[in-house]
Amino acid sequence: MKHLIDSMDLSIEELEELFTLSKEIMKDEDKYRLSCEKKLMSTLFYEPSTRTRFSFEAAMLRLGGKVIGFSEASSSSASKGESLPDTIRTVGSYVDLIVMRHPKEGAPRYASLTSDVPIINAGDGGHQHPTQTLTDLLTIIEIKGKIENQTIGICGDLKFGRTVHSLIKSLSKYEGINFILISPPELKIPEYIKKEILLKEAIPFIEVETLEEVMGDIDVLYMTRVQKERFFNEADYVRLKDTYILDNKKLISAKKDLAILHPLPRVNEISPEVDSDPRAVYFKQAKYGMYVRMALIIKMLGAI
Amino acid sequence: MKHLIDSMDLSIEELEELFTLSKEIMKDEDKYRLSCEKKLMSTLFYEPSTRTRFSFEAAMLRLGGKVIGFSEASSSSASKGESLPDTIRTVGSYVDLIVMRHPKEGAPRYASLTSDVPIINAGDGGHQHPTQTLTDLLTIIEIKGKIENQTIGICGDLKFGRTVHSLIKSLSKYEGINFILISPPELKIPEYIKKEILLKEAIPFIEVETLEEVMGDIDVLYMTRVQKERFFNEADYVRLKDTYILDNKKLISAKKDLAILHPLPRVNEISPEVDSDPRAVYFKQAKYGMYVRMALIIKMLGAI
Amino acid sequence: MKHLIDSMDLSIEELEELFTLSKEIMKDEDKYRLSCEKKLMSTLFYEPSTRTRFSFEAAMLRLGGKVIGFSEASSSSASKGESLPDTIRTVGSYVDLIVMRHPKEGAPRYASLTSDVPIINAGDGGHQHPTQTLTDLLTIIEIKGKIENQTIGICGDLKFGRTVHSLIKSLSKYEGINFILISPPELKIPEYIKKEILLKEAIPFIEVETLEEVMGDIDVLYMTRVQKERFFNEADYVRLKDTYILDNKKLISAKKDLAILHPLPRVNEISPEVDSDPRAVYFKQAKYGMYVRMALIIKMLGAI
Repeated sequence: MKHLIDSMDLSIEELEELFTLSKEIMKDEDKYRLSCEKKLMSTLFYEPSTRTRFSFEAAMLRLGGKVIGFSEASSSSASKGESLPDTIRTVGSYVDLIVMRHPKEGAPRYASLTSDVPIINAGDGGHQHPTQTLTDLLTIIEIKGKIENQTIGICGDLKFGRTVHSLIKSLSKYEGINFILISPPELKIPEYIKKEILLKEAIPFIEVETLEEVMGDIDVLYMTRVQKERFFNEADYVRLKDTYILDNKKLISAKKDLAILHPLPRVNEISPEVDSDPRAVYFKQAKYGMYVRMALIIKMLGAI
Repeated sequence: MKHLIDSMDLSIEELEELFTLSKEIMKDEDKYRLSCEKKLMSTLFYEPSTRTRFSFEAAMLRLGGKVIGFSEASSSSASKGESLPDTIRTVGSYVDLIVMRHPKEGAPRYASLTSDVPIINAGDGGHQHPTQTLTDLLTIIEIKGKIENQTIGICGDLKFGRTVHSLIKSLSKYEGINFILISPPELKIPEYIKKEILLKEAIPFIEVETLEEVMGDIDVLYMTRVQKERFFNEADYVRLKDTYILDNKKLISAKKDLAILHPLPRVNEISPEVDSDPRAVYFKQAKYGMYVRMALIIKMLGAI
Repeated sequence: MKHLIDSMDLSIEELEELFTLSKEIMKDEDKYRLSCEKKLMSTLFYEPSTRTRFSFEAAMLRLGGKVIGFSEASSSSASKGESLPDTIRTVGSYVDLIVMRHPKEGAPRYASLTSDVPIINAGDGGHQHPTQTLTDLLTIIEIKGKIENQTIGICGDLKFGRTVHSLIKSLSKYEGINFILISPPELKIPEYIKKEILLKEAIPFIEVETLEEVMGDIDVLYMTRVQKERFFNEADYVRLKDTYILDNKKLISAKKDLAILHPLPRVNEISPEVDSDPRAVYFKQAKYGMYVRMALIIKMLGAI
């Protein structure tokens, strides 16, 4: 495992190894407290993302490693006209691992071509965010005991949401998955995902427009944000927006062991009243995200 | 001790415990060098305050703990529309303690309602800044040997200065305190402080307009800034401003064992010539601030 | 060694000690892994410089020390009107060592006058950047085995480039150095450097306008950026700019054991095709910069 740029870079075996290690760390974190004590990581965040940066930095510090970094582009050498490969080669001469977030799609892949140290893509524009997918998968495993043979509902903006596309691709590697895709017509899953993944792999899926009509069938409900600016017109937005807000009323018909996930930050797509429902696992998901990053860092640094 | 939002959250016994621990740390810092080695703290500074942030971060690092954080709101998830409780719950899943500064009064209290980890208020607008008060009290104890039975002069902006109100409330818990309040008429102490604290507790105080007339009576002189924009008119400001600038000449009539405190940063309210006077303890005060924060962190994390 | 403000603060013996320690660290870094474990450093960067900040922070963390800091002025107390000496005295009460970058020439020297802890100048405007010079010297020693008795070519903006002036002064302390100074007429070395250093110390030098005419004579080629805005007119710039871009073609006549240095960041003054030439050592130079800073920190903290 040299770099992690796309969640599809990982085979199902590598995923399983990561999740197994994550579980071990959660069971006995103290054992891993010095795993990276001689290691230095750099967080290069060319656009701010506090949550993701904190998750990576907490992961590394909990492993005994150290961190240097910047949290927005204005602090970087890029403002002096330096090329990305030059920055990466220089930073790579100081540290053992680079975690990079960049507004430009493909920037982490490009950076990895000349890097002497492993690079983890922490999000590149609307493109990839592989550690979010690792987080989502680990959460499903931890809460439901497995990934296979479940009905996964994905609700909201299925067109532009990068975490959704990445999640569908990764889930499709597992047996017995079927998808219920819930979105307004404007924000349906792109054709290429249907053709290249779902139809090609013969994975059952249905597309619906309301949560209500399918709630009772779902094992795992993955909520995402529906941004007003994605709609073609105000009337559609007003007509549809409440459909994609999860509240206690919509949950009445849901399974008792449903798991509700959200990549966070949420704005208003899940009502705060849902937070106290034991089926709401999105804050636990944030914690699993830190543990899977700990496992990933250990693997990429060969620190085990 | 779950959270520290307001200095009045602490009983006189809890204060004494904190100061005792602070003294022990100052005497043998090496003994506490690993007290928090398994602990992670987050500094969420929604407005910049280098001094306070550095003091907390230095405190935690000197205890062997680790720190993640941001130093201004632009780097935070708030810019993505996330609610404060959501941010707190997510960060709380990564760390053991949150130190928070926020421009909005009440934000730390609000955050504490849903937080799974202890929160320390590092300043909320013009409202509370409890660790500044802890710093002030420890400084008086260290320099004067006690808090009780002293004449405390407080000079400058007594109307808007949050540290002043908090300090008066806390000092009022101790025996034998009397206050000399020195300010221009426009910036006198608010009526509610007089009624609810000083008159109610029958604490002796006088209000005067010049430092000169009371200098010889003061044991502890607490200086604060008088901002030009607080005055009603330019003429008043010009007439009064020099009255509130401490210099060597004004100190001629002062006691030999006076202690001069200032919360810092100062602008021009203490002339630099005073810095070399042994009675000037404001830089020592900054150092005591770090030690009392070390004691506070240990207590709040139960790391002793 | 109390402060390091100007590279000329160091005698040739002190330089040799630093380089010897740097080599020892590079040989057995693990031995120094806890050298500064009880030490805290502050990076006060009043203007951003990711590369330099990272290099210092990586150096301190690799020695087991800890770091607090800010990476641009907006996060500092200066915005509240605090004087530099006040900031330095306060920060100095938290930490053991201050690394400071400031846009104003002389600010680090001024800061050092009232500082209780050692200060390292990490660049003050166009003035001094002593650790860059240490980096350059260590690189020459490591790559060429010595500094003495070599022909040093320096190319580009020799008028405004602060690293160039500082490097010439320091190299002039060594035996048998001769300089080839390559620049457009507008950007020749200033008269005072010629008079006070080169002529005074009787150090051989020639001034030329093109790299091509001298390439074969050079042992160490130090490249710097030629900024368009330094030229008097567009025509001169267009006529001259390619002359100062190093590419494989220009290197045909170069010595087999030439060492090509650059302080980085580069913009376009060295073609990326040169990067894979073994004579290009500018990325190694970045790494040496970290090691010489490790040695410097150890020496200044007496941590050996």
